[in-house]
Amino acid sequence: MNMLVDGEWHTDAFEVTTEDGAFQRQETPFRDEIRADPDARFQPEADRYHLYVSYACPWAHRTLLMRSLLGLEDAISVSVVDPYRGEGGWQFTPEKDGCTRDHVHDAEYLRELYIRADPDATCRVTVPVLWDTKEDTIVNNESEEIMRLFDTEFDEYAQRDVDLYPEGYRDEVDRVIDEIYEPINNGVYRAGFATKQDPYDEAIDDLFAALDHWDEVLADQRYLAGDRLTEADIAMFTTLVRFDNVYHTHFMCNVQPIREYDNLWPYLRDLYQTPGVAETVHMAHIKEHYYTTHPDVNPHRIVARGPDLEFSAPHDRDALPGGPPSGLRTAASADD
Amino acid sequence: MNMLVDGEWHTDAFEVTTEDGAFQRQETPFRDEIRADPDARFQPEADRYHLYVSYACPWAHRTLLMRSLLGLEDAISVSVVDPYRGEGGWQFTPEKDGCTRDHVHDAEYLRELYIRADPDATCRVTVPVLWDTKEDTIVNNESEEIMRLFDTEFDEYAQRDVDLYPEGYRDEVDRVIDEIYEPINNGVYRAGFATKQDPYDEAIDDLFAALDHWDEVLADQRYLAGDRLTEADIAMFTTLVRFDNVYHTHFMCNVQPIREYDNLWPYLRDLYQTPGVAETVHMAHIKEHYYTTHPDVNPHRIVARGPDLEFSAPHDRDALPGGPPSGLRTAASADD
Repeated sequence: MNMLVDGEWHTDAFEVTTEDGAFQRQETPFRDEIRADPDARFQPEADRYHLYVSYACPWAHRTLLMRSLLGLEDAISVSVVDPYRGEGGWQFTPEKDGCTRDHVHDAEYLRELYIRADPDATCRVTVPVLWDTKEDTIVNNESEEIMRLFDTEFDEYAQRDVDLYPEGYRDEVDRVIDEIYEPINNGVYRAGFATKQDPYDEAIDDLFAALDHWDEVLADQRYLAGDRLTEADIAMFTTLVRFDNVYHTHFMCNVQPIREYDNLWPYLRDLYQTPGVAETVHMAHIKEHYYTTHPDVNPHRIVARGPDLEFSAPHDRDALPGGPPSGLRTAASADD
Repeated sequence: MNMLVDGEWHTDAFEVTTEDGAFQRQETPFRDEIRADPDARFQPEADRYHLYVSYACPWAHRTLLMRSLLGLEDAISVSVVDPYRGEGGWQFTPEKDGCTRDHVHDAEYLRELYIRADPDATCRVTVPVLWDTKEDTIVNNESEEIMRLFDTEFDEYAQRDVDLYPEGYRDEVDRVIDEIYEPINNGVYRAGFATKQDPYDEAIDDLFAALDHWDEVLADQRYLAGDRLTEADIAMFTTLVRFDNVYHTHFMCNVQPIREYDNLWPYLRDLYQTPGVAETVHMAHIKEHYYTTHPDVNPHRIVARGPDLEFSAPHDRDALPGGPPSGLRTAASADD
């Protein structure tokens, strides 16, 4: 794990585990809000905020996906780091396919921006980072919160009429996001970064019990929170889309791939085919990142070939009640 | 890799690869024959030969399977090593489930028998080993040759009327065994033990091209060499039965599991359900061996959970012409 300790850079190839061999995710420290309130430090504006992401990272992917679904591309610019995270942590390598320079400060490493935001920063240097070009600092680096503030505070700048945290669904969306986090979103990491058998087994039990449960729910419900596409589906999507190519092999989550689930697999294709989604999925970055960045898991850093999944195959999920918000309907689904 | 060099024991956790990162399998040195010929040093007899195996090893599994299919259990006794191969190499741990003591010499390590057979032995210490209790030495430790000599030289002691190298099929059996060895049987090892991307990619290309080819062949042919069960099927079986639980994840052969092949999967179940086969498959030993024995591939030695395969599910392959030899027909297939 690469991290800042009192503003100093420390490198360790291994992730943090407890004495029992269980993976422990660290909390992110920058947790400010953006609010349409004249007294708020950070207010919604176009061309003010900048998003740092890796296409590889499922947490960063959530924010990129929300930006795309809402049509915030013109309002919020993006820099993309190299999928390989080496000793120096996330790095900008604009010459590499799909990567960009740091459009704000032309930094070489992401950690430089953390130090810029807080010279005494003590934390992991992670993506996503939502940067404020006006105050020249980090607003927030917690994916769930960035996703939510894009969804609820940027209506004025969104080019699509999309609300993924709709009234009447909010409690259920929050409940589902919370319920899937530990067994599924973090569960694959708990399995993959376990250094002992017991925590691995526990993670696998939790993960597949949860996947089985949601596969059942999705048999007669189009989305996780009911008949509407919501943030909960975004939170699930970025884990599922990585599953068969990465988590199944690299993190040994090999009880059952998503493509063998009766409902999760069509559900995943349904989401993938929703306008704005496919262009945020960069499978080459995803595979390169995981397989080459964790020598403690995959010592020779060989990228596994993986299955060639047909994300664009028909899914028939539109036979179920509901559908994506009107701003996201394709020609084919517009007359539902 | 653990090996004897001039009779001295050397330990190295890693497998042998070339400078280019490609895995190189070493030749086995004990290659004597057993022949029903008064002048032959080793002649077929009951209670004279002893087989050392690991249930985990696909090469040893071939010999165990042949012994079982022919009904040679009473004529040729067996010792089973611990599936975990540590610094000392294959070891006898009779207290462990499925393992036995060394029934011939009560050795602690298999290497002791190699030294006994040749005090200056220079080779890897591998299973299977066919031991001659009369001359107190190793007859042969090459799986293909042991399989063949059981098949062709022990008719008198076999309790089942089974010939897996039948006249009229011999050229084809030899051809198929040879054809599947490099891309499939050894191919999974070439993928798993590659230390660089290029040899891994080459192994994966070869492996899945070969699996795709045989899947097609098996669409209208019950067995690899035609309508008869032969040694070629044994050679294929011991790789296929390990594939989804081990090679797919541990050796990153994750393009497609066998259970997603239209014909290889029913073919695998057909073989599994052939009398004498299922009792030779010890999945717990298989999984423990691979996941715990190669720290260079799986540093924390965590055993992946893996899919729970229904090897006993119906296969419908008996609709195809031919079938197992009469000595191996079940009640259900006897009236074919």
